[in-house]
Amino acid sequence: MAASDLERLIQLLGRLPGLGPRSARRAALHLLKKRESLMQPLAEALAEASLSVKNCSICGNLDSDDPCAICREPKRDLSIICVVTDVGDLWALERSVAFRGRYHVLGGSLSALDGVGPEQLNIGPLIRRAADPAVKEIVLATGATVEGQTTAHYIADRLADLPVSVTRLAHGLPVGGELDYLDDGTLTAALKARRPL
Amino acid sequence: MAASDLERLIQLLGRLPGLGPRSARRAALHLLKKRESLMQPLAEALAEASLSVKNCSICGNLDSDDPCAICREPKRDLSIICVVTDVGDLWALERSVAFRGRYHVLGGSLSALDGVGPEQLNIGPLIRRAADPAVKEIVLATGATVEGQTTAHYIADRLADLPVSVTRLAHGLPVGGELDYLDDGTLTAALKARRPL
Repeated sequence: MAASDLERLIQLLGRLPGLGPRSARRAALHLLKKRESLMQPLAEALAEASLSVKNCSICGNLDSDDPCAICREPKRDLSIICVVTDVGDLWALERSVAFRGRYHVLGGSLSALDGVGPEQLNIGPLIRRAADPAVKEIVLATGATVEGQTTAHYIADRLADLPVSVTRLAHGLPVGGELDYLDDGTLTAALKARRPL
Repeated sequence: MAASDLERLIQLLGRLPGLGPRSARRAALHLLKKRESLMQPLAEALAEASLSVKNCSICGNLDSDDPCAICREPKRDLSIICVVTDVGDLWALERSVAFRGRYHVLGGSLSALDGVGPEQLNIGPLIRRAADPAVKEIVLATGATVEGQTTAHYIADRLADLPVSVTRLAHGLPVGGELDYLDDGTLTAALKARRPL
């Protein structure tokens, strides 16, 4: 079989989501055929991103700068914060171009089964952001799963004493589905039809 | 959206076979969650393999050493050479553990449509290897596609004057299929039932 350097590369590629052992071998052969144009740039991009990309100290988004590009953007509506489970969900909403406020990334969902309590999530900083008088509305855009809805209700309870209106994405998202898998049209519709929790 | 370092990483990941834009984003998020255990090792493995892995000067296999591990292995049967289209096909045969001779990788198939002639393939060195008196048999293990069979017939013609027997893999491989996709059992059966061309 292949030599140790190549075996190690295939083994690491096979740990990427969406690649199994066979597609990892194909990817390795493809990379070796495109060393200059793909393999070396990818090695550098991985090394650079691994050092430069960090979580934004305001919203939790991933970016090379802190605060992130979205938090630094002056045209964003500062009165509205959209709360998402993960950075992938933030990206999905940005692709839909339906939301021009700022975000807050929780970094997961409440889950008794997986032992994820409120302390493990980025909830405390959200409450402090929501206490800013400039903030008028918090949109809870967690997924339509049991964990996502539990998390939304928990955050709504924590926000109840603050003078902000708390909304959630309209139903329209398929029950049991994850935000990152939705098409932009459904996401836009769900954002437009959001209603108080 | 994401910052330039991250965008560039996602764009490069999306060029791997088997990953589209969405799975490239998922892979990037997965990598950023596992920087120490996956992202940095992968960056190093890519950089190292890109420098160390080269084609074996005897058979064309990919390895960090030249000659490759298979050509250096003393227990291999030197009297038989298996001719394959690509390194992926060589790996598929090695996984089946049905062949203990040596290989010769052509690096492609003859194709008038794609303008691939005999000069573009690793055929000259194969004829020189086949002229070695120690070599008794050449197994043509090209795919059961039109290009694969054309290549096999062309090589059989070139080898006709030499005192080697030329065989091909038994039918049993699905017509139109590629070697790399076959299960080990079918590959083993096809190798065992090989017959003169």
